[in-house]
Amino acid sequence: MIDYSEFFADRVKPMKGSAIREMFKRMADPEIISLAGGNPAAELFPSDELSKIAGKILMTSPIPALQYGTTDGHPKMKECAIERAKKAGAYNEGDEVLITTGANQGIDLTAKAIINKGDKIIVESPSFIGSLNAFRTYECQLVGVDVEEDGMDVVKLEETLKANPDAKLLYTIPTFQNPTGTTMSLEKRKRVLELASEYNVLIIEDNPYGDLRFKGEEIATLKSLDTENRVIYCGSFSKILSPGMRLGYIIGPAPLFEKIEMLKQVNDVHTPMLTQLMCVQFMKKYNIDTYIEKNRKLYKEKCDCMIDAMNEYFPKGKVKWTEPDGGIFLWCECPGITDVSEIVNKALEKKVAIVPGSNFAIDQKLPSNQFRLNFSSASKENITEAVRRLGEVLTEIL
Amino acid sequence: MIDYSEFFADRVKPMKGSAIREMFKRMADPEIISLAGGNPAAELFPSDELSKIAGKILMTSPIPALQYGTTDGHPKMKECAIERAKKAGAYNEGDEVLITTGANQGIDLTAKAIINKGDKIIVESPSFIGSLNAFRTYECQLVGVDVEEDGMDVVKLEETLKANPDAKLLYTIPTFQNPTGTTMSLEKRKRVLELASEYNVLIIEDNPYGDLRFKGEEIATLKSLDTENRVIYCGSFSKILSPGMRLGYIIGPAPLFEKIEMLKQVNDVHTPMLTQLMCVQFMKKYNIDTYIEKNRKLYKEKCDCMIDAMNEYFPKGKVKWTEPDGGIFLWCECPGITDVSEIVNKALEKKVAIVPGSNFAIDQKLPSNQFRLNFSSASKENITEAVRRLGEVLTEIL
Repeated sequence: MIDYSEFFADRVKPMKGSAIREMFKRMADPEIISLAGGNPAAELFPSDELSKIAGKILMTSPIPALQYGTTDGHPKMKECAIERAKKAGAYNEGDEVLITTGANQGIDLTAKAIINKGDKIIVESPSFIGSLNAFRTYECQLVGVDVEEDGMDVVKLEETLKANPDAKLLYTIPTFQNPTGTTMSLEKRKRVLELASEYNVLIIEDNPYGDLRFKGEEIATLKSLDTENRVIYCGSFSKILSPGMRLGYIIGPAPLFEKIEMLKQVNDVHTPMLTQLMCVQFMKKYNIDTYIEKNRKLYKEKCDCMIDAMNEYFPKGKVKWTEPDGGIFLWCECPGITDVSEIVNKALEKKVAIVPGSNFAIDQKLPSNQFRLNFSSASKENITEAVRRLGEVLTEIL
Repeated sequence: MIDYSEFFADRVKPMKGSAIREMFKRMADPEIISLAGGNPAAELFPSDELSKIAGKILMTSPIPALQYGTTDGHPKMKECAIERAKKAGAYNEGDEVLITTGANQGIDLTAKAIINKGDKIIVESPSFIGSLNAFRTYECQLVGVDVEEDGMDVVKLEETLKANPDAKLLYTIPTFQNPTGTTMSLEKRKRVLELASEYNVLIIEDNPYGDLRFKGEEIATLKSLDTENRVIYCGSFSKILSPGMRLGYIIGPAPLFEKIEMLKQVNDVHTPMLTQLMCVQFMKKYNIDTYIEKNRKLYKEKCDCMIDAMNEYFPKGKVKWTEPDGGIFLWCECPGITDVSEIVNKALEKKVAIVPGSNFAIDQKLPSNQFRLNFSSASKENITEAVRRLGEVLTEIL
C-alpha cells in the first residue's frame, strides 16, 4: 500500500477540504435553503437566447467552436471583455487582455506569475476564500488588513506596508466585497493607489460584482484611477451572464501578461471556445445591460427582503449587519459571542446553510463571531423563511 | 515606469513564448499548410449532432448548464469518463475521477500536488511540450530517458532511477507518443511498472491518443497493469470529440485526488457545465465508438498519404521516420545534420509549418536534427503538397 502523503508537495500538505466545498455538497440536498454559496439568480438566466445562439453557432460555423483556439482567447471574446471593462474605465490602450476559464483562474495564474515561496500578499480581512486559497498554494504569507464599512482600513494598510516592505502584491475586491458586501470609498481608493505606488506593490482588483449596483452612486474602479499601470483588473461574466460558462478576463500590463499567458497555456491551453462564442453572440444580438438591469432590480428586491426579515426575526440588538449597495452578499456580526459555529450547525439542522466568518479569515483556525449571507440565489419566499429559521437559532443562542 | 520583471516569480523567469504558441499564431495565416499543431480533423466534427444537443439542453434544462457546478465534474460526465476509461482498463473500483478543463489541466494540477522546487520528474526524451512546460513551472528538474521505436528505453530508465533515487514522478505517453508516434511494448510497460515500484515513483500515464489505433494490436494501458495504484491516468475527449470543448479527466488514488481537487477548485472552480452536458448527451444518444472509428479510418488514410509522399519527395536515404500504428504524429530524423532550424525556416518560407525537435527536448537550447509532422489536421491533398515542398527544402539542404 502506497503512502501517498510521502508524495504530497509542501504546498498541498496544509490544504483541507474547504467549508465552501462541503457546502456545495450540502446544497445538493433539495430541502436545504442555501444562503451560503455565491450563485446568481438562476431564474433570470437568458436560456432561450443562449439555446438559439449555441444551436446556431454549431449549425452554421462549428469549427471555431470545436477546434483548438488561441490561449489568450477568441479575438471577438477579447473585444467583449474590453467592452465590459471600458464601462468600468478598466481598459487603456496598450493593456493586454486574457480570457480566463472563470475569473478565479486569472487570480490563480497572476499569483503564480508573481509569488515565490515566502512572499507576502496583502489582502482584505476577511476576503474571498477562493482567492485566499489560490494564494496559499504558492506558499505565500497572507497579511490581512481589516475591512471597514467604507472598505479597507487605509491607516492599517499603511502600517502593514511599512511593516512588510517586501510585500509584492495587494489583493482587493473594492466593490460589494466578498464576504462583507462593503464598498471602498473613492477617497480610500485613491489612498490605496498612493500607498501601492509609495511601497511599490502591484494590485489585483477583483471586480466580479461591480455591475450589480442597486443603490448609491458608481465609484471609479482602482484600474480607472491608476496612472502607473499597477493594477491587474479581473472581470467576470459569472454574475452578469452565467457562472457555469466559466468566462472571466484579466486586463493589465503586457510584460506581466506574457508570463501569465504562458501559465494559462500549460494550465488549460485555452478557455473552451463554444462558451466564448456564445457570449460574443449574446452581446452582439441582445443588450446585456438590459439583462444586467433585470438582475440589479431583482437583487435589490431580494436584499431588501432579507433585511426586512432580519429586522423582523433576528433578536433585537444582538446582530449587526452590513447593508450593501449592490452585489450578492451581506455580512453579520454577533458582538456578544466569540464563535458562530454552533449557530451555523443549528441553522443547518433547520435546513438553512450559511458560511461562518472563519472561512474568510486569514487565520482560519481562529473562531469568528461573523457569518456571510447570500441574497441572490434563493427565492424571496425562501429568503424570508430561511431568515425566520435563522432568527430562531439566534434567539436561542444569543 | 514599473519594472515588472522585479515582480516575476522565479518560476516564470526562464519561460519564453513557446514555438508552439508562435506556431498557433502562424497557423492563422490561411496560406500556410500546417503540419505543426496537434489539431484533430475538423471535417469529422459531429457538429449537427452537437448543435441539436446544445440547443435542447439550454431549451429544456438550462440551469445545470448555466449555474455553478461541482469541482470534480458533473456526475454524469464522470460516468462518461469512467466508461471511456474502462475500455482502456483504466478504472478500478475505488478510484477517484476528476473532470478537467482539457487533459493538460489534469497533468498541471497533478504536478502541482506532488512537485516541490528541485524535485525530479523522469520524462521521455523527447516528450510533449505542454506537459514539460507545466512541470517546469514547479521549478522541478526534468530527467530525460530516450524513446526507442518500442517506447522508453527501460535499461536507461533503470540507470536513471538508480542515479536519481529522490525522483518522485515518471511521466509517459506510452501509446502513439507525442512527438514520436511510437508505442511502448507490453514488455516494456510491465518493466516500467516494476521499476516504478522498486524505486517508489508515481506514474502519470497520459493517453490522449489511445483510441486512435489504426494498425496492429491494442496494448494494455499501464493503468490496467498497475496492481499498486501507482498510476494516475489522464484521458481526453480532445481527440475523440472536440478539443475546443476542453474536456479531459484524470483517474487515480483518492488520497492524492483530494489534494488535486482542491487545486482545481482554486484554479477554475469547475469545468464549464454546458460542454460537459453536451458530451454526456452525445455519448447517450450517439455511438461515440462509431465516430472514433471514422477518425481512425481517416487518420490511417492521412498517415499513409503522408508516408507515400515522404517516400516520393524526401531525398532518398537522408531522412528516417517513424511509422505509427495510430495517433496523429510521426517523427523525422536527419542523421547527416545537427540542426533542423534552417529546414524549419525554409519550409515556412514555402508556407509549410513543422515543429523542430528542440521544442520537445529536455534541454531546449540544444540543436536537434529531428522534427515532428502532424497528419490528422491537413487534407490529404494538402499533406501531399506540404510534403512535396518540404521535400524540396530537404533536398536542397541535406
